Amino acid sequence: MKKDYTAEVISTGTEILQGFYPDTNAQFLSVELEKLGITTHYHTAVRDDVDSTQRAIEIAIARVDIVIITGGLGPTVDDLNREIVARIYKRELIQDLHAQQLVAERFKKRSLDITRRNICQSLVPERSIPMYNHWGTATGFIIEDDEKATIIALPGPPREMKPMFAQAIAPYLREHFPTDRQSRILTIHTINRSESDINSKIADLFGSEEDVILALLVKEGRVDVRLTGYGSNESEVTARLEAFSKKIIDRVGGEDIYGFDEETLESAVVKLLRAQKMTISVAESCTGGLVSSRLIGIPGASKTIEECFITYSNASKQTVLGVREEALEQFGAVSEETAGEMAQGVRWISGADIGLSITGIAGPTGGTPEKPVGLVYLGLATEGKTLTLKRHFLGTRSEICLFASHHALDFVRRELQFKMKNSK
Amino acid sequence: MKKDYTAEVISTGTEILQGFYPDTNAQFLSVELEKLGITTHYHTAVRDDVDSTQRAIEIAIARVDIVIITGGLGPTVDDLNREIVARIYKRELIQDLHAQQLVAERFKKRSLDITRRNICQSLVPERSIPMYNHWGTATGFIIEDDEKATIIALPGPPREMKPMFAQAIAPYLREHFPTDRQSRILTIHTINRSESDINSKIADLFGSEEDVILALLVKEGRVDVRLTGYGSNESEVTARLEAFSKKIIDRVGGEDIYGFDEETLESAVVKLLRAQKMTISVAESCTGGLVSSRLIGIPGASKTIEECFITYSNASKQTVLGVREEALEQFGAVSEETAGEMAQGVRWISGADIGLSITGIAGPTGGTPEKPVGLVYLGLATEGKTLTLKRHFLGTRSEICLFASHHALDFVRRELQFKMKNSK
Repeated sequence: MKKDYTAEVISTGTEILQGFYPDTNAQFLSVELEKLGITTHYHTAVRDDVDSTQRAIEIAIARVDIVIITGGLGPTVDDLNREIVARIYKRELIQDLHAQQLVAERFKKRSLDITRRNICQSLVPERSIPMYNHWGTATGFIIEDDEKATIIALPGPPREMKPMFAQAIAPYLREHFPTDRQSRILTIHTINRSESDINSKIADLFGSEEDVILALLVKEGRVDVRLTGYGSNESEVTARLEAFSKKIIDRVGGEDIYGFDEETLESAVVKLLRAQKMTISVAESCTGGLVSSRLIGIPGASKTIEECFITYSNASKQTVLGVREEALEQFGAVSEETAGEMAQGVRWISGADIGLSITGIAGPTGGTPEKPVGLVYLGLATEGKTLTLKRHFLGTRSEICLFASHHALDFVRRELQFKMKNSK
Repeated sequence: MKKDYTAEVISTGTEILQGFYPDTNAQFLSVELEKLGITTHYHTAVRDDVDSTQRAIEIAIARVDIVIITGGLGPTVDDLNREIVARIYKRELIQDLHAQQLVAERFKKRSLDITRRNICQSLVPERSIPMYNHWGTATGFIIEDDEKATIIALPGPPREMKPMFAQAIAPYLREHFPTDRQSRILTIHTINRSESDINSKIADLFGSEEDVILALLVKEGRVDVRLTGYGSNESEVTARLEAFSKKIIDRVGGEDIYGFDEETLESAVVKLLRAQKMTISVAESCTGGLVSSRLIGIPGASKTIEECFITYSNASKQTVLGVREEALEQFGAVSEETAGEMAQGVRWISGADIGLSITGIAGPTGGTPEKPVGLVYLGLATEGKTLTLKRHFLGTRSEICLFASHHALDFVRRELQFKMKNSK
């Protein structure tokens, strides 16, 4: 019988609880389980400690169908997961001869002496399914039990765990926990809208369809609308997501949506530039090259980008870009006038179709009551037209630069989209 | 009475269980708690779902002294943590007037309309300690209870959670959960060394002292040596870490160590430039502004940086930097000669003391058998001297750019350190 199966991932390792690194194993396994139509309900991380591990396993096997536990199968005295799991499932540990052979071969290949602890790595609980390790020495296993959740014990190092999951665990789960449930994620990227604004526009869509989960994610001041669609086959899921995303786009308004899934502001700009066979040059002050590096980071951007200039000082704004001394004196380096002249200047000296400029106060010092930290002016010069935009960002120096780079790229995107629409 | 306190971090957010991103909040909090002498025993992540969240909280408050729960305080209908926590602790939710004022001010500053859901963000459980949010609109809180663990509810976005922890939660924990156990982490940053190389040099130091835990972490092609020192007071820990780090520095060699803890390659370069009252200009090709933006990202960098140029095309290398046509034709844009001329050119036109250049093939296309993807030349021009460096990086386009920017900054750092040593 096909049903919706639930899973928990338990990661064991004191170093995770000390914060040495984030738990990327749990992340990887959740993505893989989702692909198989299995929903991860809990992640738990515990120290290499018998009591905590045992209690975490007991809690997990009582609340989900499948428990995947990673780590604790290594050769050190801290690695006790095979003993703990075997005890909970009331099984003896037995030597698996094939596993023992694999470990021995591995040591021979690397001309290393095998230790007693390494031999322990080929122990598996009786009546379990051994998961042979071709990428290391820790043998994994699966225990099926009539009364408890199925438990899958995997080694902790990602370079052993990931291929073992792909080669042995995924096929096992597909066979033993079959599901009708296909899923796909569609992400809609927005800019210029707050989370609460978008939320108020689509509030009634949350939970409106059983097979589409809607989530808002704020990232670097921008909001992503993320749809997870479910269905019994791929085309059903795709159709469902398409219909649902149309509703979102209608409510949010197309202009503030800059892309889907892997698309970024910079890739959208490069795509639009290429479609219209146009080139751009950038003059940056406070962002110091961030906008240029984002554009140049897009494969194939070279055809669309002329040289870019980072004019941090007033003198360089004058000598490199030809900004008038009067503009700098009368209005200051961070002003609409200077932004406009920078954009015109960079367009003129580079011969590009579009000149983009960014000038602002990134902080932490340098702000005044009239021109506070976070004040940024953007300039955009095209043939016969110069536009400017004033923005005020809150945050640290690097956040202000990042937000400014988002809005500078978005400024170009809007202009190019407007142009494209009008030329049709 | 001072004792060893235990903590659990609960992260709420369906997107974590879907594997959208790793749980970096739990990682950050574990590091911070460790600094306060509090041991994190469990991480738990749950979906935005009332039942799972409630059960996870109930399990946590029965097994540790302090529970920190992040997320679920936002303005959307999914954000239910304040209601769930208040119910478990049997408290009513009340409006906090100061929090309400902060939210209103934030919206006014950004000229946005406040929504009803945003007003809910200033609700806190009665008899709790509100944690005001100066970085967003979600008010946090602490509940102390005679019969249950202390619970601390924090917003999920790291840019709100982290400063709130530093400014309000850490001082609270220091006062209410004092401990004899002090710990500090010291990170030694290296470049140009492989993990196995460093490991072989310091292998016998692992586990050599009970109160210092040693770990190697590889990040963006560079290796960090991380020491966690323990002791009964700060000066004991500091002395212990200092003595231990001296051993590491002796073994690894000082030249490949570019900094400690928060220091970065760019901050090291800016510090050295300021100490020697020198200025730099950068000409970037494949990195497209990444090196410049990293330098300009350092507060106070303005005095040390003249204008920078991104000369992506051959034409701009000639017209902007004065690279000779013959150099480009004979050796190509990605060559020792062009890198050298770019560095000299940018130094000359900007009047800076140092000219730095980067030219390379970032891929994914454009490689040849002689000049493969990942080949990068760096140039460094100072008074009367031009140095070049050839590097070959493996990875994606953005990895190659990132690695190239590390090594370009390191090139300058080495030269400045060499200069400083010789002038003494």
